[in-house]
Amino acid sequence: MAEKITPRKTSYSQWYVDIVTQAKLADYSPVKGCMVIRPNGYALWEKIQRTLDEMFKETGHRNAYFPLLIPESFIKKEAEHVEGFSPELAVVTYGGGEELEEPLIIRPTSETIIWSMYKKWIQSYRDLPLLINQWANVVRWEKRTRLFLRTTEFLWQEGHTAHATAEEAKEETLKMLLVYKKFVEEYMAIPVLAGEKTESEKFAGAVKTYTIEAMMQDKKALQAGTSHFLGQNFAKAFDVTFQTRDGTLDYVWATSWGVSTRLIGALIMSHSDDKGLVLPPKLAPTEVVIVPIYKNETKGEVLEYCERIYNTTKSEFSVIFDSDDQNTPGWKFAEWEMQGVPIRIEVGPRDMEKGEVIIARRDTGEKIPVRKELINTKIKEILEEIQNNLFKRAATFKNENTFETDNYGDLKEIFNNSGGFVRAPWCGSPECEAKIKEETKATIRALPLDSAEEIGNKRCIYCGKEAKKIATFARAY
Amino acid sequence: MAEKITPRKTSYSQWYVDIVTQAKLADYSPVKGCMVIRPNGYALWEKIQRTLDEMFKETGHRNAYFPLLIPESFIKKEAEHVEGFSPELAVVTYGGGEELEEPLIIRPTSETIIWSMYKKWIQSYRDLPLLINQWANVVRWEKRTRLFLRTTEFLWQEGHTAHATAEEAKEETLKMLLVYKKFVEEYMAIPVLAGEKTESEKFAGAVKTYTIEAMMQDKKALQAGTSHFLGQNFAKAFDVTFQTRDGTLDYVWATSWGVSTRLIGALIMSHSDDKGLVLPPKLAPTEVVIVPIYKNETKGEVLEYCERIYNTTKSEFSVIFDSDDQNTPGWKFAEWEMQGVPIRIEVGPRDMEKGEVIIARRDTGEKIPVRKELINTKIKEILEEIQNNLFKRAATFKNENTFETDNYGDLKEIFNNSGGFVRAPWCGSPECEAKIKEETKATIRALPLDSAEEIGNKRCIYCGKEAKKIATFARAY
Repeated sequence: MAEKITPRKTSYSQWYVDIVTQAKLADYSPVKGCMVIRPNGYALWEKIQRTLDEMFKETGHRNAYFPLLIPESFIKKEAEHVEGFSPELAVVTYGGGEELEEPLIIRPTSETIIWSMYKKWIQSYRDLPLLINQWANVVRWEKRTRLFLRTTEFLWQEGHTAHATAEEAKEETLKMLLVYKKFVEEYMAIPVLAGEKTESEKFAGAVKTYTIEAMMQDKKALQAGTSHFLGQNFAKAFDVTFQTRDGTLDYVWATSWGVSTRLIGALIMSHSDDKGLVLPPKLAPTEVVIVPIYKNETKGEVLEYCERIYNTTKSEFSVIFDSDDQNTPGWKFAEWEMQGVPIRIEVGPRDMEKGEVIIARRDTGEKIPVRKELINTKIKEILEEIQNNLFKRAATFKNENTFETDNYGDLKEIFNNSGGFVRAPWCGSPECEAKIKEETKATIRALPLDSAEEIGNKRCIYCGKEAKKIATFARAY
Repeated sequence: MAEKITPRKTSYSQWYVDIVTQAKLADYSPVKGCMVIRPNGYALWEKIQRTLDEMFKETGHRNAYFPLLIPESFIKKEAEHVEGFSPELAVVTYGGGEELEEPLIIRPTSETIIWSMYKKWIQSYRDLPLLINQWANVVRWEKRTRLFLRTTEFLWQEGHTAHATAEEAKEETLKMLLVYKKFVEEYMAIPVLAGEKTESEKFAGAVKTYTIEAMMQDKKALQAGTSHFLGQNFAKAFDVTFQTRDGTLDYVWATSWGVSTRLIGALIMSHSDDKGLVLPPKLAPTEVVIVPIYKNETKGEVLEYCERIYNTTKSEFSVIFDSDDQNTPGWKFAEWEMQGVPIRIEVGPRDMEKGEVIIARRDTGEKIPVRKELINTKIKEILEEIQNNLFKRAATFKNENTFETDNYGDLKEIFNNSGGFVRAPWCGSPECEAKIKEETKATIRALPLDSAEEIGNKRCIYCGKEAKKIATFARAY
């Protein structure tokens, strides 16, 4: 712990960078816009991957791997898709010492290459549904980048499914949105708003895009995952038809859905404090750290006592015993707090005499004396409490900073002062949406999932015409 | 199972392609030289990944992720490295709609980008050893490609470690070679020859390269994994020094090591037969398939009986119950044999009456009646037997086709006729090595690990001068 972390009040964005770099989660690379994910950061990604991967498999999906490089002509086949992605493409023009006849694009997303293969694999309704997921790296050229939140290359998963009917594809789209919501809320301890994107915010090539939006500690929104109903757009672009049960031919219906290493940014910005990272126990690579406190004359005894505690705990939890002689207990406390380990066990000579240990909670700082015979039961209990507390704290914060208004002056004032999520009636016109964005820098993050939500006689907060939906506005990452 | 698999005798290479495509392991993609790994193939890769990843972690390594794109100037910093990789590079010249000032290379391997980061992370002996592994995709432009064995893009892991002394780095190099050997022999059931590469066959940038070489059923060698002692080559190229315990400055010592999706090719070519894939149980995504055999009047009873067998077995094994009504038992037998499932359970009315099932082994075809109460015990036993039998069979084949000679005429005859591994004395000169390759298409696959191996007064098989080593020659993939 060489340097101090900038407090959030001084500079929220510097605080974020300090945590990422000092907890050794990621580092800037010599390649513009690309980051290096260091072992501490990658361990978080592995936890996220394992958990999501199981959830995908439980819902019937299988993993596969498609090429990194996509012929330029493929990207151009779906009109909206090419328009959306063109400014962000990285282009390979030389291979094996020769100029390529057709340039190859490094995948910004894989709909086109995957649907070119689905054409080979799908002939009949018996080949459907086809439920495939891919864990991969993608490249989108970004002008302004931030570690984890927006980088030119990032890691993600992309699900791509093919269905016989629109209904089934729509159902899949919403099912995966809810898988994401469950994961982010139950494992990452971050409450999210699930909803639909407006036309202007949807994925290039989708009929409908659904999103989960989280609120960061600076009250900005972060899009944490999206799920798209693609209709027959990619099936038509790649001519993927199938024989229906009735013997007729129809285009295949599609979905795609993804989350990325951006989730690690959301994790940091939701729970961490001015001492460093705070991790929900379910995703913490190390759950417990043991720090012995001794003077020369008690050293042997205390270390031996800690060793026994270590052997007891490590059978059930992921534990580090920090017996390093070079650093003081105070230094270690600060270091492990910075790294976000949920539970610290402190043991001094007096605790030892009493047959106890002290458990310190990373989330509240509370110190709890525990009989050594009860240690595993107590750790389990406290880890659960921390997990629940982090979610509750974040949910309270989100609720306290979610406002409802139908007065445009109030909306502007909220974004000029405190920020947050603002629910307001909207007529549905892209013009009003654009004007509000221009004047407040807030965008519509989500429309209600349940399109039948009652809005009564409400009027659009901007133009005053009949409102169609209650939109949630926020400034966003 | 639409088409038949070409028998090995008719065409070994077509047999291989038939298995890969008909067992739906991989498919050709529209991008030249790149393959699509289909769910059946990717499930094998996941099994390989999980197992190796645990072995890496047990030996103290942590995963991280470095950028896909490498500045062209980096690749050029290590003289041998650039010379070795130049012909195989894919080059990005446009990004975000603009021509790049410096072209970016898609990583063919990551030594250069990683050592540029190690320069930031390593200052003192206290930062060492640094033991990092990466799971990633790499691109090497290939003229002639084969599914899994040689593709322009492939998936792999690359370990990159940094050490304070040459001894420690050498020890790491050999330790990881033996991890690979253990994995390939114990999990993949493929016996390998571990040894050192000659100068002409070593990794571009390494001081020494070690290899494990497996023998395929056509008696050709396949390099299944390599581990490199890199000396201080990359530390010097990227100026990575550290303060030693004595307070002096020294360059850091390095290793790198990797295995790739090529292992799936090795797996197929080691064990499979003319009916299709044969998988070692430890890597088989599905261990058991249950196939009911019934006529209309017995259908209900047999299916119910199988359902109970399914519920009993699935608690311990990965089981598919193929109750599909559309296909005959014969069709199902052939299909699951083609997919390489190690154990098939057949149940007909008579087996049911006796309270038995029939277990059919994929490796030997043997059919074993088993009391239904003993089914899980028996499956466990047979899976172990299959695993051991596959290894023994492959080891016998390798031993029977490994020859020893010091007569060049014999060596040529072996390669003209049967093929295999040929152990022969060699003087150590690259000229003799090149001549033998030219005249027989056989290369030196490995030199003995133990450099002190007794060669007595042997003479080089080619030039007749004093021999230095017993080299193992073979034609190779």
